Amino acid sequence: MTQINQYQRDRKFINLAINLAQKNLQSTAPNPRVACVIVKDGNILSTAITALKGRPHAEILAINKIKNHADLEGATIYVTLEPCCIYDGKISQSCSEEIIKNKFARVVIACLDFNKNVRAQSVEMLKKAGIEVVVFNDDFKIHQEFAKVQNFGLPFITLKIASSLDGKIATKNFSSKWISNERSRQYAHFLRASCDAIVIGKNTLQQDNPRLNCRIAGLEKCITKKIIISQSLDFVEELSNYEISKNNSEIIILTGISNEHKIFKENLSPNFSLKIIFCEEFIDKNNCKKIKFSSAMRNLVAENINSVLVEGGNQIITQFLQEDLIDKIIWARSNKIIGGDGISAIGDMFLTDISQSLKNFQRLESLDFESDIIEILQKNNL
Amino acid sequence: MTQINQYQRDRKFINLAINLAQKNLQSTAPNPRVACVIVKDGNILSTAITALKGRPHAEILAINKIKNHADLEGATIYVTLEPCCIYDGKISQSCSEEIIKNKFARVVIACLDFNKNVRAQSVEMLKKAGIEVVVFNDDFKIHQEFAKVQNFGLPFITLKIASSLDGKIATKNFSSKWISNERSRQYAHFLRASCDAIVIGKNTLQQDNPRLNCRIAGLEKCITKKIIISQSLDFVEELSNYEISKNNSEIIILTGISNEHKIFKENLSPNFSLKIIFCEEFIDKNNCKKIKFSSAMRNLVAENINSVLVEGGNQIITQFLQEDLIDKIIWARSNKIIGGDGISAIGDMFLTDISQSLKNFQRLESLDFESDIIEILQKNNL
Repeated sequence: MTQINQYQRDRKFINLAINLAQKNLQSTAPNPRVACVIVKDGNILSTAITALKGRPHAEILAINKIKNHADLEGATIYVTLEPCCIYDGKISQSCSEEIIKNKFARVVIACLDFNKNVRAQSVEMLKKAGIEVVVFNDDFKIHQEFAKVQNFGLPFITLKIASSLDGKIATKNFSSKWISNERSRQYAHFLRASCDAIVIGKNTLQQDNPRLNCRIAGLEKCITKKIIISQSLDFVEELSNYEISKNNSEIIILTGISNEHKIFKENLSPNFSLKIIFCEEFIDKNNCKKIKFSSAMRNLVAENINSVLVEGGNQIITQFLQEDLIDKIIWARSNKIIGGDGISAIGDMFLTDISQSLKNFQRLESLDFESDIIEILQKNNL
Repeated sequence: MTQINQYQRDRKFINLAINLAQKNLQSTAPNPRVACVIVKDGNILSTAITALKGRPHAEILAINKIKNHADLEGATIYVTLEPCCIYDGKISQSCSEEIIKNKFARVVIACLDFNKNVRAQSVEMLKKAGIEVVVFNDDFKIHQEFAKVQNFGLPFITLKIASSLDGKIATKNFSSKWISNERSRQYAHFLRASCDAIVIGKNTLQQDNPRLNCRIAGLEKCITKKIIISQSLDFVEELSNYEISKNNSEIIILTGISNEHKIFKENLSPNFSLKIIFCEEFIDKNNCKKIKFSSAMRNLVAENINSVLVEGGNQIITQFLQEDLIDKIIWARSNKIIGGDGISAIGDMFLTDISQSLKNFQRLESLDFESDIIEILQKNNL
């Protein structure tokens, strides 16, 4: 086989692994959504994706699908992210050790690990064991959520907006059903299934009482956590009356550190899992204590959340934008016109010159959803 | 030649004529932007488009490009719109008479005339003269501006908006340079060249003092008229100070009938062509006299205007939408975010329920202009 054929063959199988990884919608946090493909003599022996909640890793699952491990001798494993090399107490052996033990001949990797402390260490370990290693250094976007966590200590944050043609999310008296069409709303449910947590503010909770679940057949059981950001905790004792407490998902409330000593009635959350996290605050220009969203988001990483979908409302969205925390915007825009007195998708930003406008997003693509268009923008420097 | 070959050949040459018509950007009002192609024995003998201001017609120009008219005997003429059959005093003979006189064998037509009083009469006349006539009955959109005038007595009205990602046309203090990128602004200039008139309100005139010209090389000399809609005429005596009076185009002011007896200083418009048209009024809910835009637009047809581009501002746009006068929306949307306190593209509409929103536009296409997206929507029932 010539070098060029080998390259083409590797590209084909690593692309297959990347496609599998991108189809892995279930939450694998704190681990990335890795996929791998095991190939021998040009035949695929097995494939796997990282399991729900991140364990077992894709490599272990793919290896264990092979009954007779002796068959793996001389095989190639294609994996979207550099295999782990550190035994973390939860597994008996690292993926790299498993690969060595099973006498693989080659390891082909799409991206190196994003954690600078371990980056390329597995490659080194595998090479020392006499295994050929090929690294494609593909676009990190395959694992951009995990990269965000590793590089910045923050989850990957997507803002979802559904607006009229003229950028309004409701009429002046908050009528909003339905601004977008059924296909857009279905897409929004898909987004819910494919992130680790959904964030709303207290106003949205109280005004809309949303379920925040995914109503797509086959994806109803996604384990997306529900996050409420609120400086005030006056709604907490009544939380069991709200729809979000009724679908078995974990609820996390992000509030200010100054609430830390607040005392609640006993049996605050008998029917659902509730956690209150007290976050760093700042004093705004009106001399009010406000939650520092950047700090609040950092706290979510410790809760095994790699990706967050911000669903509103307008004040929450505005602060996320002002703190420069949004990585991606998904804007569903209908063909309806509401007029200037409708509620704007984004709150007041007090700009006096166009040069001050936020302009660090670039359009990745637009999806044509009949009467709606979905625009997808991503932060420039990602 | 089989029937199928004849159909394919006709389709090819009529498509060529349609392409030529669509490239004809110059104002041909009051006539449509027709194009024709003369073919004999499979060879193109000549092509032409209707001339500036509508005369001569495309057919006459194409015929006159042939030195020896005897060569036209037995030829086929492909024309985007049914040729005229009525001598209107401006020409010596109708196009249909010219076609008969020159002994064409066949006439292939994309659309019949939209004027119900003469529709299909030329076809009849040509057939009686022994000429074979083929009518494709193609999508009337080839000549949708002319169709609008013929069917509704109104020009075809396009609304152009340039906004931020969040639907704002300026910051709260009217900073708007530049919301859209250079490519979008270039496209806006192209739109100016391809319509018969541009409409703005008095506020836009006074705040922006726009030139409203086309600054694309080769299109600078477009004869697009400038229209100002204003109930008040207090700006008229100073009009020569504004930029729009400085590029040799006709200016028309549309005002209310109650201003009819207003007296102006002598020599009101020494350097430019100015016409004031007094339009029907209505009394709004605040008991103010306002111009009825539908009536104002009807008056423009008599001024040889088949197509209008509405450029703003926000009050003018809102009334055009509320009177259901807009046929097409061209919305350039940048990647900038201005926030809720910016100026909305469309003014207050006082809706209290989403079901009241305007929803009679459907997306035709989206153009990817780097950081901007251009969305093109058209009225459903057109």
